[in-house]
Amino acid sequence: MDIEDTLLMIPGPVKVAPRVLRAMSRPMISHRSGDFSAIYSDCCALLRPFFETANDVVIMTGSGTVGMDAAVASTIGHDDKIVTISNGKFGERFAEIGERYGQVVPVKFDWGTPFDLEKVEAAVEGGAKAVAMVHNETSVGLTNPAKEVGEIARKHDALFIVDGISSIGGNEFQTDKWGIDIAITGSQKALAVPPGLAVVSVSPRAEERFLSKSGSYYADLKAHLKSARKSQAQTPFTPAVSLFFALQEALHMAEEEGFAARRARTAQQAESVREAAKALGIDLFPRVNQHSHYSNTVTAMKMPEGVSDDKLRGGMKKRGVIVSGGQDLIKGKIFRIGTSGADTGPGGQDRLLRRWSGGGEPGAIQIIFFQPPGLNRHD
Amino acid sequence: MDIEDTLLMIPGPVKVAPRVLRAMSRPMISHRSGDFSAIYSDCCALLRPFFETANDVVIMTGSGTVGMDAAVASTIGHDDKIVTISNGKFGERFAEIGERYGQVVPVKFDWGTPFDLEKVEAAVEGGAKAVAMVHNETSVGLTNPAKEVGEIARKHDALFIVDGISSIGGNEFQTDKWGIDIAITGSQKALAVPPGLAVVSVSPRAEERFLSKSGSYYADLKAHLKSARKSQAQTPFTPAVSLFFALQEALHMAEEEGFAARRARTAQQAESVREAAKALGIDLFPRVNQHSHYSNTVTAMKMPEGVSDDKLRGGMKKRGVIVSGGQDLIKGKIFRIGTSGADTGPGGQDRLLRRWSGGGEPGAIQIIFFQPPGLNRHD
Repeated sequence: MDIEDTLLMIPGPVKVAPRVLRAMSRPMISHRSGDFSAIYSDCCALLRPFFETANDVVIMTGSGTVGMDAAVASTIGHDDKIVTISNGKFGERFAEIGERYGQVVPVKFDWGTPFDLEKVEAAVEGGAKAVAMVHNETSVGLTNPAKEVGEIARKHDALFIVDGISSIGGNEFQTDKWGIDIAITGSQKALAVPPGLAVVSVSPRAEERFLSKSGSYYADLKAHLKSARKSQAQTPFTPAVSLFFALQEALHMAEEEGFAARRARTAQQAESVREAAKALGIDLFPRVNQHSHYSNTVTAMKMPEGVSDDKLRGGMKKRGVIVSGGQDLIKGKIFRIGTSGADTGPGGQDRLLRRWSGGGEPGAIQIIFFQPPGLNRHD
Repeated sequence: MDIEDTLLMIPGPVKVAPRVLRAMSRPMISHRSGDFSAIYSDCCALLRPFFETANDVVIMTGSGTVGMDAAVASTIGHDDKIVTISNGKFGERFAEIGERYGQVVPVKFDWGTPFDLEKVEAAVEGGAKAVAMVHNETSVGLTNPAKEVGEIARKHDALFIVDGISSIGGNEFQTDKWGIDIAITGSQKALAVPPGLAVVSVSPRAEERFLSKSGSYYADLKAHLKSARKSQAQTPFTPAVSLFFALQEALHMAEEEGFAARRARTAQQAESVREAAKALGIDLFPRVNQHSHYSNTVTAMKMPEGVSDDKLRGGMKKRGVIVSGGQDLIKGKIFRIGTSGADTGPGGQDRLLRRWSGGGEPGAIQIIFFQPPGLNRHD
């Protein structure tokens, strides 16, 4: 199999458009040049509306996790308390990060189940410098109630930190309206850039409460803001210049599609996956309620009875479609299909339908993606 | 000016070969796939001889600084002492990093002057868990005595951490023979890959003395080693996949040239720059002695009297040649020419000579790079 000729439908990294790959492969330039500064500034100008924020944003070189790390390390000192809410792998990561720098008050829910907001408020009432949560829990396909938790954080004067890595640009995400002091995304999700950049927005309120020095040298929001605010925007350490080329191109591509249009398309694709699952008798994994919804960027489904992860994902892979399995404690029990990123066009959809129209490998399952709900795939 | 059509001669990022740019622009793959693991393993197999080490190496997503941060954060706890030796910007960075995690014993020398090894030993004798130094001080163009400091560290049973970011692959650098427990490089120097990856080698001795948990969540060598040692090599957080594509190609390119041949070529190019400076009456910036040498990867020269940084580097830029200025306290007082990276071939050299053969802009200086010492450029 040509590993390059696949339909990559994992929650991220997502497929990167050829025009973005071409932009990325431009010859190297100095990271201390006006040319680089202009790219950085252009990216930030587009990232603010992408985040729906008037706050400053910084771009860090690293995975999305470096942004989560920077948010916590820059605000939580040894004696500071941080409430971390989790119902999946990445919520738990916030607790692990918090433990490196300060005092963690964990509020844990079973993977894939909604937050109990009363339990959250009870924890925050106890006093905390910050509350951290994941908006879109990639590991379980559930979108958590950021707006509601934001209200609790504000009521108790805590900073509000939100991992929006697999969410911003794919799901609805209103940084300022929801009172998010520090929001984080990664380049490899809805932005549809290769992984390696984290974007972090920082409110003035967060900045006022920064530690004098971040607990981490590299993951330091104050240092990144200081460099970004120079008359010519810079980064404190040598940035991944090629990924900035890619990010700039991808942001212009997203702006051309329209940020709202991209979210609507992502929602429609996820709806198609959910409809297909329903038609095939496959159960969705997460439990939802009035505040917690099926994610539009990643759909997590229970592995059908009698079908192994190997058979299902292996069969799909043979047909050139790459999807994700479960992580950690739900490994082998679920599989996940990502619907985030740039528009791969009808070509991509047709290709997928062709691959799946001929009947599955033994044990594999035909799933009809991208088809408007209610329509037969042969219509 | 076409910013892509320049001769990039800064200490890094360096020019990236077209075949590496093409490899980098391959379509995205899953970072949890066997395909990615194979690339990671292939890179490590080539990086060990590149570092001249039998130790394990890990590849981190971030600038070279994340590797320095990881080395210190993984070994130095709150009450641990680290001796940091500095004679330039990056040596001072080790002290700044050390202050975030433990107790720093700084041994400071004037920028661009050699280490006094007796002062180093006096500091280490006082007891320290680690000694950290920069092998090639990029900011001043000086190669520091790693072998000699390594002997001091070993004698006093301290771990030896060396920033080899602008050195490994360009200067002679013998990780194991010099007793280096943790060596660090960045992708954008002698490897001639775009910036965004740090490579770190770790000795068993260092690993035995790791803290139970790194002081930084993201910059955590233990976590990176654990993931790299899985039956299929992985990274703990989503890696910059495209930069791994580039690194793999660049390592094969370096292996084809020969690691020793690349170092010899780099040395010859630096020698040409030094000869040209001498012929033009331009003084080299650093002071050298029997242990400390002019760098082969970056030549730092004093700004000629009456010539401003703007005039000199601005004039060069107009002619399509990008070089670096001084940093921090020697800004405007020196300029620096990088000679590291892949072989850009005689085309690059001819191009440079053509650009410089017609007489300089007012205030700019003709420098003849890449020409064997002693030969007239028209021979």
